[in-house]
Amino acid sequence: MYSKIVFLGPNGTFTHEVASSLSDDLFFQCSIPSVLKCVEENHAEVAIVPIENSIEGSVGLTLDLLVDSDLIIEKEFVVPISQNLMAKKGVSLENIKNVFSHSQAISQCQKYIEKHKLKTHFTLSTAVAAKSIKNINDSGAIGSKKAAEIYGLEILDENIQDTDNNQTRFVALGKKKTKPTGNDKTSILFTLHDNNPGRLYETLEIFAKNKINLSKIVSRPLKEGLGTYIFFVDFEGHSDDKKIKAILEKIEEKVYLLKVLGSYPIAEIGNINK
Amino acid sequence: MYSKIVFLGPNGTFTHEVASSLSDDLFFQCSIPSVLKCVEENHAEVAIVPIENSIEGSVGLTLDLLVDSDLIIEKEFVVPISQNLMAKKGVSLENIKNVFSHSQAISQCQKYIEKHKLKTHFTLSTAVAAKSIKNINDSGAIGSKKAAEIYGLEILDENIQDTDNNQTRFVALGKKKTKPTGNDKTSILFTLHDNNPGRLYETLEIFAKNKINLSKIVSRPLKEGLGTYIFFVDFEGHSDDKKIKAILEKIEEKVYLLKVLGSYPIAEIGNINK
Repeated sequence: MYSKIVFLGPNGTFTHEVASSLSDDLFFQCSIPSVLKCVEENHAEVAIVPIENSIEGSVGLTLDLLVDSDLIIEKEFVVPISQNLMAKKGVSLENIKNVFSHSQAISQCQKYIEKHKLKTHFTLSTAVAAKSIKNINDSGAIGSKKAAEIYGLEILDENIQDTDNNQTRFVALGKKKTKPTGNDKTSILFTLHDNNPGRLYETLEIFAKNKINLSKIVSRPLKEGLGTYIFFVDFEGHSDDKKIKAILEKIEEKVYLLKVLGSYPIAEIGNINK
Repeated sequence: MYSKIVFLGPNGTFTHEVASSLSDDLFFQCSIPSVLKCVEENHAEVAIVPIENSIEGSVGLTLDLLVDSDLIIEKEFVVPISQNLMAKKGVSLENIKNVFSHSQAISQCQKYIEKHKLKTHFTLSTAVAAKSIKNINDSGAIGSKKAAEIYGLEILDENIQDTDNNQTRFVALGKKKTKPTGNDKTSILFTLHDNNPGRLYETLEIFAKNKINLSKIVSRPLKEGLGTYIFFVDFEGHSDDKKIKAILEKIEEKVYLLKVLGSYPIAEIGNINK
């Protein structure tokens, strides 16, 4: 579907798994700002980045970058995440004292880590973690099966995440508006007059009165001091729909700043539709 | 004021700076769950942990632990955060290719890191970062001046955070209810019926109609799948006030689960009042 894709790498991450199902022509960058820049400068058609996880919450940096970027959300992908403990071949679970992974993967496996009294070490990605322990005897890494495969590691324990409700939502960020399909979602961000969080209800009332389902509401700091926020809201409908257009106009009257981040088809879980 | 304090360590973190201004009898634990456990098991009177930063947002793990913990918020402290780049003595800024720090400190200095094209490495804390680079020539660490002092490092650049609105809010978690002072704040968490974020406005309306100022509203995943949330709200007033009691009763009727996390004096920025 896409000609060229840039994804948040390195190879072996869950983002890599999503990107590789969409195109064979792909490359990675190791930071979210660099990934977005590649699309802004036309080195790739779309960027694949994680935006939220059902256990750990929003990927703050992705949301923060959407505030100023001109890229729009073209598509979303919801992928069930299964975390695995892996180690050098021959190392057994009893030998493991340290565990390396990305902070989100470590957060997702808190109960397992506490039960096995593992010391945590944060890395840039789950793939970097796998690479960093491939020659060490007392350490494991948490990550995807793909990472174990790439670095020749053995899976010591599967599905070690705290709950089975572990899903990550990825988005494709690009420059093309996605046409309505009849089963769409729109993402917006807004800030409030006087930075007063108490006024949020006036905006949410517009959705409620119009019976529009919200699928997400999260706040990020506006970076103007504690208690000032940017709100990110996802709701059913496409910004080209007449009804949604009218609602967006009403919201614009209530809020200080409104930005539409994109309208795109609602993803089915685990079903990566090219 | 407090007999014995446990804080999120190690020594040299910003949390250490707060804790040491409150008592001379203190010790640290290196994970937030362990810090809370020390108070739950009466090894310390209160725990000092970070709860939110004005740039990076909530400390997800602290919020998540408050859901199940019996500890209450006894006090809050708002501290301006100044991040510094430090390195081994004799190393100059031009030699630095890598930078080590806690993920929140790195997020707070994104622009500086990009400008100087530094490769980022995440560590458990800003203090661990300082310690890890003390003998390395091509790497710097981001953290407090206290960390530079402890590990004999030189400050290469001061105040490198993206904005000067960088404040961290810390809380003292313990077992004693704090009495009303006339200038108090109450923290609550709640979940909604049917996990429907669209119903949030009904709860916020109660605050608005009663002219209660909200100072915070953030969502965390309920961990039951994407789009299900626990909301954390801070508002002016003490849960012993007659007016606030009535409001909490009204909220309880609207929400699925309500938990009062504590009422405590509103902190002045940077003024750590023992």
